Amino acid sequence: MSYCPMCSRWDADSDLRIIELPHSYVIFNRDQYFPGYTLLFVKEHATELFHLDLNVRTALMEELSFVAQALYATYRPDKINYELLGNMVPHIHWHIVPRFSTDSLWPRPIWAESHEELHLSPDEYRQRIEAIRSALL
Amino acid sequence: MSYCPMCSRWDADSDLRIIELPHSYVIFNRDQYFPGYTLLFVKEHATELFHLDLNVRTALMEELSFVAQALYATYRPDKINYELLGNMVPHIHWHIVPRFSTDSLWPRPIWAESHEELHLSPDEYRQRIEAIRSALL
Repeated sequence: MSYCPMCSRWDADSDLRIIELPHSYVIFNRDQYFPGYTLLFVKEHATELFHLDLNVRTALMEELSFVAQALYATYRPDKINYELLGNMVPHIHWHIVPRFSTDSLWPRPIWAESHEELHLSPDEYRQRIEAIRSALL
Repeated sequence: MSYCPMCSRWDADSDLRIIELPHSYVIFNRDQYFPGYTLLFVKEHATELFHLDLNVRTALMEELSFVAQALYATYRPDKINYELLGNMVPHIHWHIVPRFSTDSLWPRPIWAESHEELHLSPDEYRQRIEAIRSALL
């Protein structure tokens, strides 16, 4: 297997960790242009849903739903967007993005226009991550 | 509940039907600019994964994986993209899109640039749908 940046993402983005779940790691996206943008990636290196064992796939989807619910409770968006793409990094990772009717691209997908990345201060990352963690309990 | 176009989509796009599954309807997307683009939508009117009962959510994700595998077998893409957005039509529907390293937007998401819709002849739709159905059996 060639180098996979997702296999080492949990270590590489240790300041963005939200929670480790049985089958996935969940991190806050560094670019917070879309507030609450979160990534969930499966622990094993797999690239398509149908490559996973049934029990892993089922658990992964519950973990996705669990995290989306916490984001919903924290941000109260108009919709959650769930996207599993992987054209650049095929290791299964979900983009979970709260969307608001007031955001600049609404109702289009987040990819419809490029934007400058919005990075936060270390304190702001910590506060927002803590708020999501509280909603996961 | 206000009018929902997804609740009537199975009837409206009856020429694009691929298969009815226990918890979802699966139709071929009319725009085939991305070959194999398929939609899977849940039978009940629900808008977020975490609003579904656990057994429905689990079954729905299996149906999604089942259809993706058939698209993979039919088209042999480089990657499948799975997207649940719903900003315009919130009724849960999955965009399942085979992606190829040769397609015009690769490796970007399909939404990165707009395109003219590509419609097929009735015979072409039937042939492509039949090929997917064969892979589902």
